[in-house]
Amino acid sequence: MAKDILYLKIAKAITEQIHSETLQFGDRLPSLRSAQKLYNVSLNTIKLAYMELESRSLVESRPKYGYFVSQTSQRKLALPSIAKIKESEIEKNPQDLIDKVFGTISNPDLTQFALGIPGKSFLPLAKLKKSIINVIKNKNDSGTNYEPVQGSEQLRREMAKWALVLEGKITEDDLVITSGAMNAIYNCLMAVTKPGDSVAVESPVYFGILQAIQLLGLKAVEIPTHPISGIDLDALKKALPKLSACCFVTNFNNPLGFQMPDENKKELVRLITEYNVPLIEDDLYGNLYFGAERPKPCKFYDEAGLVMWVGSVSKSLAPGYRVGWVAPGQFKERIIRQKLVQTVCSPSLYSDVIADFLEHGRYDHHLRMFRKKLYANYLQIQKSVTEYFPDNTKISEPKGGFMLWLELDKRICTEDLYDEALSKKINFAPGRMFSQYNQYQNCMRLNYALEWTDRVESDLEKLGKMIKNRI
Amino acid sequence: MAKDILYLKIAKAITEQIHSETLQFGDRLPSLRSAQKLYNVSLNTIKLAYMELESRSLVESRPKYGYFVSQTSQRKLALPSIAKIKESEIEKNPQDLIDKVFGTISNPDLTQFALGIPGKSFLPLAKLKKSIINVIKNKNDSGTNYEPVQGSEQLRREMAKWALVLEGKITEDDLVITSGAMNAIYNCLMAVTKPGDSVAVESPVYFGILQAIQLLGLKAVEIPTHPISGIDLDALKKALPKLSACCFVTNFNNPLGFQMPDENKKELVRLITEYNVPLIEDDLYGNLYFGAERPKPCKFYDEAGLVMWVGSVSKSLAPGYRVGWVAPGQFKERIIRQKLVQTVCSPSLYSDVIADFLEHGRYDHHLRMFRKKLYANYLQIQKSVTEYFPDNTKISEPKGGFMLWLELDKRICTEDLYDEALSKKINFAPGRMFSQYNQYQNCMRLNYALEWTDRVESDLEKLGKMIKNRI
Repeated sequence: MAKDILYLKIAKAITEQIHSETLQFGDRLPSLRSAQKLYNVSLNTIKLAYMELESRSLVESRPKYGYFVSQTSQRKLALPSIAKIKESEIEKNPQDLIDKVFGTISNPDLTQFALGIPGKSFLPLAKLKKSIINVIKNKNDSGTNYEPVQGSEQLRREMAKWALVLEGKITEDDLVITSGAMNAIYNCLMAVTKPGDSVAVESPVYFGILQAIQLLGLKAVEIPTHPISGIDLDALKKALPKLSACCFVTNFNNPLGFQMPDENKKELVRLITEYNVPLIEDDLYGNLYFGAERPKPCKFYDEAGLVMWVGSVSKSLAPGYRVGWVAPGQFKERIIRQKLVQTVCSPSLYSDVIADFLEHGRYDHHLRMFRKKLYANYLQIQKSVTEYFPDNTKISEPKGGFMLWLELDKRICTEDLYDEALSKKINFAPGRMFSQYNQYQNCMRLNYALEWTDRVESDLEKLGKMIKNRI
Repeated sequence: MAKDILYLKIAKAITEQIHSETLQFGDRLPSLRSAQKLYNVSLNTIKLAYMELESRSLVESRPKYGYFVSQTSQRKLALPSIAKIKESEIEKNPQDLIDKVFGTISNPDLTQFALGIPGKSFLPLAKLKKSIINVIKNKNDSGTNYEPVQGSEQLRREMAKWALVLEGKITEDDLVITSGAMNAIYNCLMAVTKPGDSVAVESPVYFGILQAIQLLGLKAVEIPTHPISGIDLDALKKALPKLSACCFVTNFNNPLGFQMPDENKKELVRLITEYNVPLIEDDLYGNLYFGAERPKPCKFYDEAGLVMWVGSVSKSLAPGYRVGWVAPGQFKERIIRQKLVQTVCSPSLYSDVIADFLEHGRYDHHLRMFRKKLYANYLQIQKSVTEYFPDNTKISEPKGGFMLWLELDKRICTEDLYDEALSKKINFAPGRMFSQYNQYQNCMRLNYALEWTDRVESDLEKLGKMIKNRI
């Protein structure tokens, strides 16, 4: 039997197993060597069969871990729909709701699906403590000296070395250290806009970005956003002539979870370059990928210095340290000036600790573990939502990060649901937080970077029941 | 002989010693007990004599240390003059000059008269290090948790307890922690102004305040300022109807060093209340007093909640920690919102260290030593300037803090002098940095919070010679 027919036969057999749910989403296929024995064929034939399955999106390869039945192979719930944003829509500031939700996120009694930061069990707390103690012991000035305004040179150097994804396109000289990613975004907005200007954002949009835009007297222009490919580039193109800036979360978007495809990123950079509009690219989830490799940011395709590439360790290592950065391209001097006036400089100790973590490979080591845990949790929450929530629930397909976006039955108001859930000690982020218009009332965002306990599982079941009771 | 004649005779004898320079500025008078034996009179008579001298400003009492010959008793150099600010004056942004001076302040080879922070030998570095290690050892979260946006409750509680000068008028609830005093000022400006608004400042004005005002698109209104009593209240009154805010350094002003008298503070608060104009009161030097007690801030007299009282530990304990605070009165919610959007929260470790320092009395202990050293240095620099600089040099009379303001002969351009001084490894802050107009070209600010070595002394001599050569 010819090899090419053999591998197709094996692929067909596995496809049937997937369709009959003998193999389910998240299951690992037998290793190449086991499968070789199982089907009694050459290693190459098995490889061809698995690649065939991968090309049909039935399985995903995860380097070093093997092949897994993919989500798309068995998706039972639909993707969230794309919002049609009408400019005529009445603005309804979500501030009251944001305040309400934020008021509960430090309550330790709640299951914190609303949080935007990973749970403690995901962070290398002991190693961080050790690093802080080592760093402070070696600091002659006990951390009292001012750092350069641009930020610790050591940290910037380590950051630049570590940002392999940019393939050497940035050096320490191109980076400015900030007080977390939000501070970088705030400074970028200050640098390239003046009150009254318009800034394009995704829709749904991370509410922190919306708050910054509104606080600075700017106008947010919500662009329709696809749950898999991100911002609608045609809609953006129409808006570009009147924009002063764009602000997008391109990788593992908050809240939608998408990874903007490379071709879209290239086209986005081409468009902003054509219209000479700066792009603030919030890439703070970029290292939390489920796939084979860290996705490229738009910054990689930027020749004109228009992309201001923002990152931080808040989502991946140490939220409270407030260490972020920006590679602001042609706007570097404005950002440094803004930082000087706003805070003089960053506290040096945390910069040194993060630099230490990067230098000794501890951050990479941590991220490898963290990504595995996040992916496992994603599979968990995906399964639980599919099981407990109504069948007409629409669910995002995050390619990384730790946010799940759900679109529920039209009759559900997640703001009302929030109160009921809270009374049962369950927290989530209601959809209306993610728009300046009265939108996404039937949506919610769930954080899944929490220790997966029986309580978490049963709380999702409770939440599903509450929703079913409301239909 | 009647007591009242006796004490006057003793006062007269001492006055003559002062005038003949047997007793010189800064010298300590004999203790009450020694003087009692010396003059063979009752303790009470000596007390009366010393109080008489004090009432004539010939001596100053410093509780627990005794009586000292005062500066005014023997002042040889005149006070700086009050600038006449013409609105018609052409604006000349001092940014280029500020950048130039800032570019050299981390150069360890220079004698740093330009710096706005105390030298390392003035800070309790070992105790700070110990405190950091203790704090981090006890933190279960290794500092990764977010703090409340308003700031660490423990720090705010300790701050409120420690702010005795306000006599219990503020609680932890009234304070917001910021990233240093400049960050507090920036947030206060953001909270109460919009671009195009006018903000009153002193003249000469601390350049950081000027930079913040300009960066936010505001207009700085420079008000003539007296080197002893501060802002000219009549001039301010005329400007008030068109102001959106005032921003003053009321205690140990930077650069003039004055302590605004209590009656002026009361009147200032009365005026801003009448016109309903918020006052940002930058009181970050307030604890570095040379006199008997910590002066009251305007905040003490504020009933309407219009005074936003700003402080920090940057000038007195740990510049690089970036810990400041503001008691923003009626603008608290706006400040908290601004902070949330700008940085989410402060890093917790430094808050805990400062709280620890306050709680265990270490800050008080440090301040007592620090004030003594600063006062000694002030006497030193005052003497050296009097000795080495031309006789027509005008010199400020700081009542605390560590900044000296000099007004030189009209023919001197301190910007040119700066280059010559720098070539001899001496640094200072040229006067033009302290105005948006082309003013104070013959002025300079000297920092005297540096270890008083022979080199410092000889550098002042060199500086004096350079000036003399230019007349």
